[in-house]
Amino acid sequence: MESLGAVVQTGVSPAQPALGRQGYVRAAVAGATGYAGGELLSILLRHPGVRIVRLMAEIPKPIPMEEAHPALRGNRLPICELPALDDLRSSDIDLVFLATPHEASHNLVPGLLDRGLRVVDLSAAFRLKDPAAYPRWYGFKHSAAAALAAAVYGAPELYAEEIRKARLVANPGCYATSIILALTPLLRAGWANLAAGIVCDSKSGVTGAGRTPSERLHFPEVHENFRAYSLFHHRHVPEMLQQLGLEERDFIFTPHLLPINRGILSTTYVRLRGGRAVEEIVSLYREFYARAPMVRVYDAGAMPEIQAVARTNYFDVGFALDPATNRLIVISALDNLAKGAAGQAVQNMNLMYGFPEETALG
Amino acid sequence: MESLGAVVQTGVSPAQPALGRQGYVRAAVAGATGYAGGELLSILLRHPGVRIVRLMAEIPKPIPMEEAHPALRGNRLPICELPALDDLRSSDIDLVFLATPHEASHNLVPGLLDRGLRVVDLSAAFRLKDPAAYPRWYGFKHSAAAALAAAVYGAPELYAEEIRKARLVANPGCYATSIILALTPLLRAGWANLAAGIVCDSKSGVTGAGRTPSERLHFPEVHENFRAYSLFHHRHVPEMLQQLGLEERDFIFTPHLLPINRGILSTTYVRLRGGRAVEEIVSLYREFYARAPMVRVYDAGAMPEIQAVARTNYFDVGFALDPATNRLIVISALDNLAKGAAGQAVQNMNLMYGFPEETALG
Amino acid sequence: MESLGAVVQTGVSPAQPALGRQGYVRAAVAGATGYAGGELLSILLRHPGVRIVRLMAEIPKPIPMEEAHPALRGNRLPICELPALDDLRSSDIDLVFLATPHEASHNLVPGLLDRGLRVVDLSAAFRLKDPAAYPRWYGFKHSAAAALAAAVYGAPELYAEEIRKARLVANPGCYATSIILALTPLLRAGWANLAAGIVCDSKSGVTGAGRTPSERLHFPEVHENFRAYSLFHHRHVPEMLQQLGLEERDFIFTPHLLPINRGILSTTYVRLRGGRAVEEIVSLYREFYARAPMVRVYDAGAMPEIQAVARTNYFDVGFALDPATNRLIVISALDNLAKGAAGQAVQNMNLMYGFPEETALG
Amino acid sequence: MESLGAVVQTGVSPAQPALGRQGYVRAAVAGATGYAGGELLSILLRHPGVRIVRLMAEIPKPIPMEEAHPALRGNRLPICELPALDDLRSSDIDLVFLATPHEASHNLVPGLLDRGLRVVDLSAAFRLKDPAAYPRWYGFKHSAAAALAAAVYGAPELYAEEIRKARLVANPGCYATSIILALTPLLRAGWANLAAGIVCDSKSGVTGAGRTPSERLHFPEVHENFRAYSLFHHRHVPEMLQQLGLEERDFIFTPHLLPINRGILSTTYVRLRGGRAVEEIVSLYREFYARAPMVRVYDAGAMPEIQAVARTNYFDVGFALDPATNRLIVISALDNLAKGAAGQAVQNMNLMYGFPEETALG
Repeated sequence: MESLGAVVQTGVSPAQPALGRQGYVRAAVAGATGYAGGELLSILLRHPGVRIVRLMAEIPKPIPMEEAHPALRGNRLPICELPALDDLRSSDIDLVFLATPHEASHNLVPGLLDRGLRVVDLSAAFRLKDPAAYPRWYGFKHSAAAALAAAVYGAPELYAEEIRKARLVANPGCYATSIILALTPLLRAGWANLAAGIVCDSKSGVTGAGRTPSERLHFPEVHENFRAYSLFHHRHVPEMLQQLGLEERDFIFTPHLLPINRGILSTTYVRLRGGRAVEEIVSLYREFYARAPMVRVYDAGAMPEIQAVARTNYFDVGFALDPATNRLIVISALDNLAKGAAGQAVQNMNLMYGFPEETALG
Repeated sequence: MESLGAVVQTGVSPAQPALGRQGYVRAAVAGATGYAGGELLSILLRHPGVRIVRLMAEIPKPIPMEEAHPALRGNRLPICELPALDDLRSSDIDLVFLATPHEASHNLVPGLLDRGLRVVDLSAAFRLKDPAAYPRWYGFKHSAAAALAAAVYGAPELYAEEIRKARLVANPGCYATSIILALTPLLRAGWANLAAGIVCDSKSGVTGAGRTPSERLHFPEVHENFRAYSLFHHRHVPEMLQQLGLEERDFIFTPHLLPINRGILSTTYVRLRGGRAVEEIVSLYREFYARAPMVRVYDAGAMPEIQAVARTNYFDVGFALDPATNRLIVISALDNLAKGAAGQAVQNMNLMYGFPEETALG
Repeated sequence: MESLGAVVQTGVSPAQPALGRQGYVRAAVAGATGYAGGELLSILLRHPGVRIVRLMAEIPKPIPMEEAHPALRGNRLPICELPALDDLRSSDIDLVFLATPHEASHNLVPGLLDRGLRVVDLSAAFRLKDPAAYPRWYGFKHSAAAALAAAVYGAPELYAEEIRKARLVANPGCYATSIILALTPLLRAGWANLAAGIVCDSKSGVTGAGRTPSERLHFPEVHENFRAYSLFHHRHVPEMLQQLGLEERDFIFTPHLLPINRGILSTTYVRLRGGRAVEEIVSLYREFYARAPMVRVYDAGAMPEIQAVARTNYFDVGFALDPATNRLIVISALDNLAKGAAGQAVQNMNLMYGFPEETALG
Repeated sequence: MESLGAVVQTGVSPAQPALGRQGYVRAAVAGATGYAGGELLSILLRHPGVRIVRLMAEIPKPIPMEEAHPALRGNRLPICELPALDDLRSSDIDLVFLATPHEASHNLVPGLLDRGLRVVDLSAAFRLKDPAAYPRWYGFKHSAAAALAAAVYGAPELYAEEIRKARLVANPGCYATSIILALTPLLRAGWANLAAGIVCDSKSGVTGAGRTPSERLHFPEVHENFRAYSLFHHRHVPEMLQQLGLEERDFIFTPHLLPINRGILSTTYVRLRGGRAVEEIVSLYREFYARAPMVRVYDAGAMPEIQAVARTNYFDVGFALDPATNRLIVISALDNLAKGAAGQAVQNMNLMYGFPEETALG
């Protein structure tokens, strides 16, 4: 946890214009009643450099925030209102977090940018570089080409410099984060035998599916149950392929629904191109993530599990290797609402405004 | 588990007309896609004296039963159809189980009785003797007075004789069963100090709330959570008061939602009128339930828990007594879908057709 | 549910000596206090052709069975005693189920066979054909070579004829069953590209780890958690390789611990040798398992999940295929205590004594 | 979240000697490997005025803290060592948190006080004023009479002044906190009819039972289960009676085990002495807790639930009243590891050292 004093000392140079005259970021949250919205609020409330100035959601009438998030009772938060974009002005607001559905984000972002607001969008609306991919994977036609071109993919461990300057950050998907951070060091080093195929078997808690009730997410349908879904066609696949530079034919991603609230654990199978000791893998990842405070690379023999990352912003990664056959298993874990959504969004905001990357996330 | 042979030998006298010429009961189930409906099917499938001849539910179009209940895949069951009462004839069907909403049952039952069918109704539509109670507790006006007058309250441990002859059995509520069977021996013996008040603190799994999705029953809202609800006004209260002969002012019933699928445990606090040893309480209950094969009375010192009754049709009851102050705690447990709904419904059917009471339930 | 009448008609020829003069199987269970032991009892209690004549466990003193398994309260079962092999005689007992640790089974079986008893052993002590494999995988030296040579691997779908005549059945492991039945049709047909490697990513409920308390299985360490374990060296691997005819280098098996009580779901990745439609896969499995009443092969598009098999003896299997790349995902599910242990043991007993295979398991 | 700057401005006067020359509290934790110990560490790590200088536990050999608490991986914490009291000196340490068993605390505290250290003891060893109560309730003879006499019961909402000056704080039990804070305003106002009896029906998550594995807390024994325990004789009863000024004959406390990790919800039944509107109750509690930042009193109609308090230090309380009969139900909720243990311990430390009460707890 960083105090504002520490922030001023270490993170923000006087010349950086990011923090306004106020000395803090004035943040708005749209989609505040969902799970990612609630997580955003709980993180922002402990951020010493942020004030939450506006809350919005598609609700029948304004409500106090504790009606949607009982744990937030007692915090001084604005009333949650219906979205009214014409009221959002850069004189009052610096940054808008969008925890809204894909199409809603797609429709909102150009107007927000035009108003001079910076945006961190937690939906997928600006993650895929190719607008033509949206009809297949997300079922809508993308018509915000300029914003899409300007968007920066918000993986702080990979694109910190671009994020610092970004006006629009496309916050990565939860599953996508668990796979992209697990594979990037290996792929960039050229150690993986791509032709042998990569298999990612992922398991996620239920909050990753959002807060809208449905029979498939009704308590008795999930509890004491476990199932795979979206085999060969989950929406996060194109985002992973784009970031990893892989072809669909060399990559399988299979999501499963865990009977827990929060957390993703991914088991990824890769064949290496040549003989490596597991300690070399550990070293490769340690070097790659040397400046990434939210990544924890495990020693050989130790393995991430969901409880180690739940309600933290950490991305944890560990390895098992069969040296006789060069087969590597990468185990990665994160909290889908934190590092997989709201925590990563704040991490991006921290970069955008010159706060230490882990502020409010440690 | 009873084989049909045993049934014929011990349960059905030749003079009893209950079993038709077929030698088995032809049963229909309405509301077959819900949790109680599914439980009914799994019990009836192992009943040697029943054939399931018709399945109905309010669904957009007919479906194979395994679409609603994957565990039933591979069983030979009729397609689940939309209800069409004119098609239900006593030439094809002996008994209809209604696992339908209260108002639907209210509307259906008179017609079914007119057609000569026998009915076990799992809703509350025919549980309360006073039709005037329905608007307050269930929000609809009761207009089936003749059926209501003819209905027998389906607690086999209390009304076996009436149930044997009944054409309409009103199957008790799950919470109600857990309280009525826990208190009846004590109250009938006159051992309780009613003026001191009786407090029933009940906890139920989620299937008791049905299968319709809602935000309150969305997985992440229930898991790692626990809450009380309907304080002082749960719908099962009038049913309990009616059966126990108590006044509302002497009785509190507080339900809570457990993050489990199945089971109810009730903790009931009673002050005794005079000094008793706990062994006397155990003996009282053992005698009262001497002929009740589905009731298990625990020795002093042992206590029911939900796992002991889950997926069984047993009602379990145990006691703790503070002899210095005559304060008694009664712990009762049952499975809300079995003894609290479908299992008790089949137990009633067994009585109606002369099967041993525990057939398919042991 | 089969009545004994049906059994006699369809399953047992008069010439078959399996059922003794009693007309039923006199069964003993060793290890009766564990989870598999409890599941055995609940199945055997509803088996019309079995009497449970002796229960044993390594306990300080004899106990009524309900102390270990509260749900069995009220059933007439023998007292659970300490094992005393000299008391086990073929004049009193036909078959012994061993739900005991590997080494205990290893030590017990030769004596039981010598006494003329038949044995279904739920441990791994007689599953691996090569006695030299035991030190590496199970940590003890195997010295019961004759029994090992006589043992039949108890997969009823693969070895029904051998099981019928067996005196010692080595009941398969829970994970092993979920993989062996998922892959055998494909491998026997020669459709899999073995050189591309097969990846089995399995997830199991906690009862699979037994009933001995440990910190890793303490409730708060499992609930809201999920983890992989035994990467590249789970004990069920040699059993799978032996049955599937695979080399260790072509096969990965990764188990994970689910925060549920019962059930295994395995996600298996295979590359096909040539172009196939998913319907061909379905047909291949349907034919292969045409006479296997406990296997349910899903249509293309439908997928097994744990709730569909929990507390049943079914093995469910479904498929997703990427025809462009010949990559196949096989999803298989079973209940680790039923088809993965006690249910399969009874299925083997049914074959050994001429009962219909699914008796007490349907 | 308070920054140290805010602390200095608002909470600590220059004359107060509580904070040493270092400007921060040097804290040690004994029992660091348990659940309460781990929670203490995660709270203290975000406390701007504390440094964790020593960690101890009864372990075979020193371990890095992340071995016991994987979520703490990556934090700079001392190695966890075996306790060696002679090494604990006031020149290095200001305050020791004891998250140790009752008897261990009983044996340790006098020596710690002698060394000039302040102590917050999370065990029950110094909660009961009467040393003669210990053999009955805790099974050991109390021989630290001087420390017991000096101990302050650490309920900050009731004893803030005494806690500020205390050298030894006896941190309240988790269940006790949930009942004491729920009843004190009502009892002090004299509104309760004590002769009618008070019934407290409490339900707790499993971490309240500690981290030692046992069969009763083995995952499959708790999951999908629920049970009452310690009827009429739970150890927290004397603590409640002492604080509430009640007699055992007028008070029932029944704990139950919830299949969740964290949280207690208590349902308390009281009869009022005279007619009151529920709003009067709310007002009474709001006034009583007007200066208690960690108490949230709900409006009539709203009710606490465990998710509202889980992983927070809040104590939440709400009310349902039957005005016709003056029967009141009080629903109270807290997190057993936070407000019920480690959070309350830090709240006490905050008072002892002049930090705002909610520092690191907001």
